[in-house]
Amino acid sequence: MVRAARPADVEAILGLIRELAQYERLEHQMHASAADLHAHLFGTPPACEALVAEAAGRVVGYAVFLGAYSTFLTRPTLYLEDLYVTPQMRGTGLGKALLAQVAAVAVQRRCPRLDWTVLEWNRPAIDFYRRLGAELADPWRLCRLDGDALARLAAGAGTI
Amino acid sequence: MVRAARPADVEAILGLIRELAQYERLEHQMHASAADLHAHLFGTPPACEALVAEAAGRVVGYAVFLGAYSTFLTRPTLYLEDLYVTPQMRGTGLGKALLAQVAAVAVQRRCPRLDWTVLEWNRPAIDFYRRLGAELADPWRLCRLDGDALARLAAGAGTI
Repeated sequence: MVRAARPADVEAILGLIRELAQYERLEHQMHASAADLHAHLFGTPPACEALVAEAAGRVVGYAVFLGAYSTFLTRPTLYLEDLYVTPQMRGTGLGKALLAQVAAVAVQRRCPRLDWTVLEWNRPAIDFYRRLGAELADPWRLCRLDGDALARLAAGAGTI
Repeated sequence: MVRAARPADVEAILGLIRELAQYERLEHQMHASAADLHAHLFGTPPACEALVAEAAGRVVGYAVFLGAYSTFLTRPTLYLEDLYVTPQMRGTGLGKALLAQVAAVAVQRRCPRLDWTVLEWNRPAIDFYRRLGAELADPWRLCRLDGDALARLAAGAGTI
């Protein structure tokens, strides 16, 4: 069963975010806190939204998404930050149910596009997404500025 | 000179979005309208924000950005949707000034990260970003659901 996340789900979602970071071999990038996640999911306005997948009363999967934008379409779009189902519960349809629900939110909000990123070595995820109709937008590469490099560039900005 | 976009800049920005779509060989994806862009940049709340680069009183470059989110950091981040400077004005520092200003917004809003995407064949852009300290997050691939595939998946969602 898929439903909107509630404040009582925050610890369970955080546990699954940690599992996802381990699965993606990105634990060194994981610095999440339950207090922050709570504030961002349930603040006014929220910074992002979450759905959870429940089985036998336990949260076993989640999706976090938020608004994005396309200048080529001049339309708000939706961005899927995370989609995760705990290994024991894969193959039960919960991942598809989560993604379908995010797609339904996109359609409901008249967002013509739902984007997300996937690790190129994560073949099971890529195959799963393709089966559901997604396309890999192959020529695009993710660029990132953070840490000292971000601070350094920011320090060189003029005042406006 | 880099400054925040004003309503009177919308037509000029739209012209540059069209130039960017041509440069990226994505004109077939370009369906932007000035009325929508105006509504999204200057609505309450805005769907995205824009900076423009001006030279001799003319808008010759722009950046569009908006908020994003990292679950691994449980922190709001910034996403750069577009950065463009018209060909005749490249090499004059305006692209760097635009990106530095977006970086300054990130720092000011306590966003630890600024992400964007670049076409893998766009070597001048990749070299430019690297010179400014950005990293290509190589293992990530962009995934996308839109059109019929998005509608089809959404139609299969349960009610929640």
